[in-house]
Amino acid sequence: MEFGRTRVLCAATVSEGVPKWRKGSGLGWVTAEYAMLPRSTNTRSERESVRGRIGGRTHEISRLIGRSLRGIVDYKAMGENTIMLDCDVLQADGGTRTAAITGAYVALADAVAWMRRQGMGSGQPLTGSVAAVSVGVVDGVPMLDLCYEEDVRAETDMNVVCTGDGRFIEVQGTAEGKPFDRALLNQLLDLAATGCAELTELQRKALAE
Amino acid sequence: MEFGRTRVLCAATVSEGVPKWRKGSGLGWVTAEYAMLPRSTNTRSERESVRGRIGGRTHEISRLIGRSLRGIVDYKAMGENTIMLDCDVLQADGGTRTAAITGAYVALADAVAWMRRQGMGSGQPLTGSVAAVSVGVVDGVPMLDLCYEEDVRAETDMNVVCTGDGRFIEVQGTAEGKPFDRALLNQLLDLAATGCAELTELQRKALAE
Amino acid sequence: MEFGRTRVLCAATVSEGVPKWRKGSGLGWVTAEYAMLPRSTNTRSERESVRGRIGGRTHEISRLIGRSLRGIVDYKAMGENTIMLDCDVLQADGGTRTAAITGAYVALADAVAWMRRQGMGSGQPLTGSVAAVSVGVVDGVPMLDLCYEEDVRAETDMNVVCTGDGRFIEVQGTAEGKPFDRALLNQLLDLAATGCAELTELQRKALAE
Amino acid sequence: MEFGRTRVLCAATVSEGVPKWRKGSGLGWVTAEYAMLPRSTNTRSERESVRGRIGGRTHEISRLIGRSLRGIVDYKAMGENTIMLDCDVLQADGGTRTAAITGAYVALADAVAWMRRQGMGSGQPLTGSVAAVSVGVVDGVPMLDLCYEEDVRAETDMNVVCTGDGRFIEVQGTAEGKPFDRALLNQLLDLAATGCAELTELQRKALAE
Amino acid sequence: MEFGRTRVLCAATVSEGVPKWRKGSGLGWVTAEYAMLPRSTNTRSERESVRGRIGGRTHEISRLIGRSLRGIVDYKAMGENTIMLDCDVLQADGGTRTAAITGAYVALADAVAWMRRQGMGSGQPLTGSVAAVSVGVVDGVPMLDLCYEEDVRAETDMNVVCTGDGRFIEVQGTAEGKPFDRALLNQLLDLAATGCAELTELQRKALAE
Amino acid sequence: MEFGRTRVLCAATVSEGVPKWRKGSGLGWVTAEYAMLPRSTNTRSERESVRGRIGGRTHEISRLIGRSLRGIVDYKAMGENTIMLDCDVLQADGGTRTAAITGAYVALADAVAWMRRQGMGSGQPLTGSVAAVSVGVVDGVPMLDLCYEEDVRAETDMNVVCTGDGRFIEVQGTAEGKPFDRALLNQLLDLAATGCAELTELQRKALAE
Repeated sequence: MEFGRTRVLCAATVSEGVPKWRKGSGLGWVTAEYAMLPRSTNTRSERESVRGRIGGRTHEISRLIGRSLRGIVDYKAMGENTIMLDCDVLQADGGTRTAAITGAYVALADAVAWMRRQGMGSGQPLTGSVAAVSVGVVDGVPMLDLCYEEDVRAETDMNVVCTGDGRFIEVQGTAEGKPFDRALLNQLLDLAATGCAELTELQRKALAE
Repeated sequence: MEFGRTRVLCAATVSEGVPKWRKGSGLGWVTAEYAMLPRSTNTRSERESVRGRIGGRTHEISRLIGRSLRGIVDYKAMGENTIMLDCDVLQADGGTRTAAITGAYVALADAVAWMRRQGMGSGQPLTGSVAAVSVGVVDGVPMLDLCYEEDVRAETDMNVVCTGDGRFIEVQGTAEGKPFDRALLNQLLDLAATGCAELTELQRKALAE
Repeated sequence: MEFGRTRVLCAATVSEGVPKWRKGSGLGWVTAEYAMLPRSTNTRSERESVRGRIGGRTHEISRLIGRSLRGIVDYKAMGENTIMLDCDVLQADGGTRTAAITGAYVALADAVAWMRRQGMGSGQPLTGSVAAVSVGVVDGVPMLDLCYEEDVRAETDMNVVCTGDGRFIEVQGTAEGKPFDRALLNQLLDLAATGCAELTELQRKALAE
Repeated sequence: MEFGRTRVLCAATVSEGVPKWRKGSGLGWVTAEYAMLPRSTNTRSERESVRGRIGGRTHEISRLIGRSLRGIVDYKAMGENTIMLDCDVLQADGGTRTAAITGAYVALADAVAWMRRQGMGSGQPLTGSVAAVSVGVVDGVPMLDLCYEEDVRAETDMNVVCTGDGRFIEVQGTAEGKPFDRALLNQLLDLAATGCAELTELQRKALAE
Repeated sequence: MEFGRTRVLCAATVSEGVPKWRKGSGLGWVTAEYAMLPRSTNTRSERESVRGRIGGRTHEISRLIGRSLRGIVDYKAMGENTIMLDCDVLQADGGTRTAAITGAYVALADAVAWMRRQGMGSGQPLTGSVAAVSVGVVDGVPMLDLCYEEDVRAETDMNVVCTGDGRFIEVQGTAEGKPFDRALLNQLLDLAATGCAELTELQRKALAE
Repeated sequence: MEFGRTRVLCAATVSEGVPKWRKGSGLGWVTAEYAMLPRSTNTRSERESVRGRIGGRTHEISRLIGRSLRGIVDYKAMGENTIMLDCDVLQADGGTRTAAITGAYVALADAVAWMRRQGMGSGQPLTGSVAAVSVGVVDGVPMLDLCYEEDVRAETDMNVVCTGDGRFIEVQGTAEGKPFDRALLNQLLDLAATGCAELTELQRKALAE
């Protein structure tokens, strides 16, 4: 997945069976792991495997990706199978989490198509598509898809995950500098909806190839 | 801090100096750590110290609390001092993260008052107050302050962090079951704003004592 | 459990089954975990979950609590069930380990009563009661129940765990400053026996309520 | 150090400087680490380095050894130097902790003599000698120096650390089966005192060589 | 770097200063870290960051890459600067460690050229070039550059690191099935020398672009 | 095992069963763990159990020992049993890894003889013997069995693992200072072959006792 100079490698792995707490339910599971290569950023960051522990940011984003994709999954149709989505950032220039969600959906749709060809599960395991964008306020102006430099300067930062039919799966808005009001929140949501619609179209084309 | 049957012990610790990456900036720092006692929940959960690693949920909530409080802090007025907020859940019945933020603000305000009496920093390090509520949709009905049982059944779950003057610091809405639309989002935000206003009033009273 | 300004939250958790090495023996198991909240002490101490490892002191005290309670347990009457005792120090002012043992016994007795009402195990799983005190020599004077400030100044420090009928389960005496002789050891044991007897009486009353 | 079939390799390491919390105090420090080789026991035990964490028993014994030796150290005469005592069990047949203390004292005395030849510290850093024995009740009979098989069967188990002049540094008695009374405690202490006196004599001879 | 279907992303990071143990020596340092993306292999492998520890194979290869590159480095000409080489396997089909060394050399040469343009160090920090190949015996036939399937079947497996002028920096031969004799060792070394010479030529062309 | 002043304690542990990935194959498994006591070296090194992670060097050597011994094992004749070889360095003066391999073979042969007496496995699980030496170039002169001081000064360092009939299981040559050519490699291999032959003879005698 490429968003400007941001590049995220998204891969789906299908495996039979589900985590312990879900066994015997007849339901599937979808989960995700996100990580950055040490030199994906301008300044090299230490490997989490070397530090021996996963940082809070990595945990938070992995959980967000998993939640976002689970929002369009019909666990019953999946059968007791698990799909793991690995999102590895090769190059980071802002918006890596939203790029990861948008790319992971494509990998998920591919994996689901493969499962159906293998006769795993039954029916249609996806109830729709998912795409995500980041929006923010830079120098007082609401903007879509902030690159790293803009992101650092943003006063408000919002990540929005939408389904293909324009509903929300996740809305995360954070005041970086000063608190924001309802009017600005609405402006950002409008902008995000437009951005997600465009990505949905691009995903459709990519999957059609 | 008590929200229904949820009880969170919030303590602030003031220390001189700031983390390395902030030294020499003349600015202060506020951070938070959240944890649950193993028997705060109905079913005992293993200690993170025993498992040897902090889970993703703990990381995510600690970061949210820190971010929420930093939204009303004037780092310059703090001087190069750090305030650490420990939020330990003694008993959990839903809404522990929003209870933690609301209680942590009271501890923070106490700590800042103490700093001023000690002559640490200068001016007013707090630009306002912070309170947080959880709202959700249970059986199709938008509700404020979900207890654990309601939370489990909620279709949409939203945590909202507001300043005392009604602006937003953080808005986090997640579709648990099915995606939500803009109209529902607006209903939940209205409900949250009312809830935060009530908490702001209770905080004011508690600090006045 | 409150001893002066020391406060320890003691909770018992009953679960079916026993650790692997004990399966099929027909015997139960009792174990304990002790921890301090980061701000239970005057100076904040780092969380063991954050450090990623449990310190030696925590391990030592958890083991002591478990051993002390097992001293009055009839494993056969418990059946193959496990009781875990969580002792979390909310506020520390000396004697946290003896407060934890004394409080954990009350939680254990409650748990055992609950088990009997549920029909778990058979017969009487407790062969007696347990209470513990710390005694020490401060400025040459043997004293009972040292608070933190006295504890730091103590030349000899002793923790004694007694059964309700006055026998010993654990005696741990340590010379902090200079070695102690047999006469002093005897004086401290006399003092401890008196202290434990008083606590036994208080436990009896608490459980009667 | 050999106690029957128990063999512990004790080595002292002198280094300049003391831990951070002690810097500038003019005082020295003595500490110890205990470990068992995986095949020192009849049944191989997993390495703690492989498990990635030190177990409670190892922590507890390392702390006991350090405390025992510090009981006869004059920190001032040591100067700001640290002595680390490594006690590695090559073969275990009961009483490894008391063998470790008794052997570590010899290594400590050697190290102190070396320091004096190097002109490190001033005066006499040792105020006496230390030896330790385990005593226990097997089939109702108080016994000295239990081997592994006896230790497993012991009803009461006591480790006693004495100075060369017969005073106590540490007394740790634990009821393994049933609680013990004051009379038995006294018998065990008498036995331990005799055992320590013999070891003190053997240490004197070893150091004289 | 691409070797058949094997793809390794190699990145060099230059930083001022050297590790502690080398400070004040006037000498530079070169080190490397190797890792595989979880889905670089046919079957997904768990992340080392999730497991919380780096495996033996990763450690061994990281050390090999560092050693190989240090074989052609003039530490004095580098000045007290460090070059870290990150080798991340995006897709694995045999020979990832030799591909990593060969690619890391190109990244190193690029980094050194950059340093010279910045005026870091003095003189020529590289005394030559480095390339590496794997050779092995499959079904009795010595072969160059084994892909994963061949590697699994290989009876003997050898990794050879050569300088551009045909000398050896590292020779690692391992009998997978049955021990090998001197004649076969010689055959494999001849094959490896030819392979390294070809890679050296390709490296020269890549750096000339 | 003693090589000059280097002393390594080698112990074999036989256990029924094999690791998970090998179950049901009818084949056995041999593996090894290597470690150094903290004071085996001139300067004390920190315990890996205290650091909480195993270093790269330890991993690399443990893997080498395992691989070397597996080179002469007939897994089928072992049956589904595992032999773990523990190699603990008590004193280190160069060549600890080759001493460990040579000593581990003797422990392995002992363990295999014991298994046969117990009726575990069938046939002859060892297809030969294994010994290992280190060779190197010191001041331009190829030498066998470098002690620590020579090892530090060596320009080239090679570890060679041979079977009793003179074939190779592992050849690892590393240029420490400058790259080496084929002629020197051949000289070192000749030297190693002679050294291994002598060790094979000594192993035969030791096992005959």
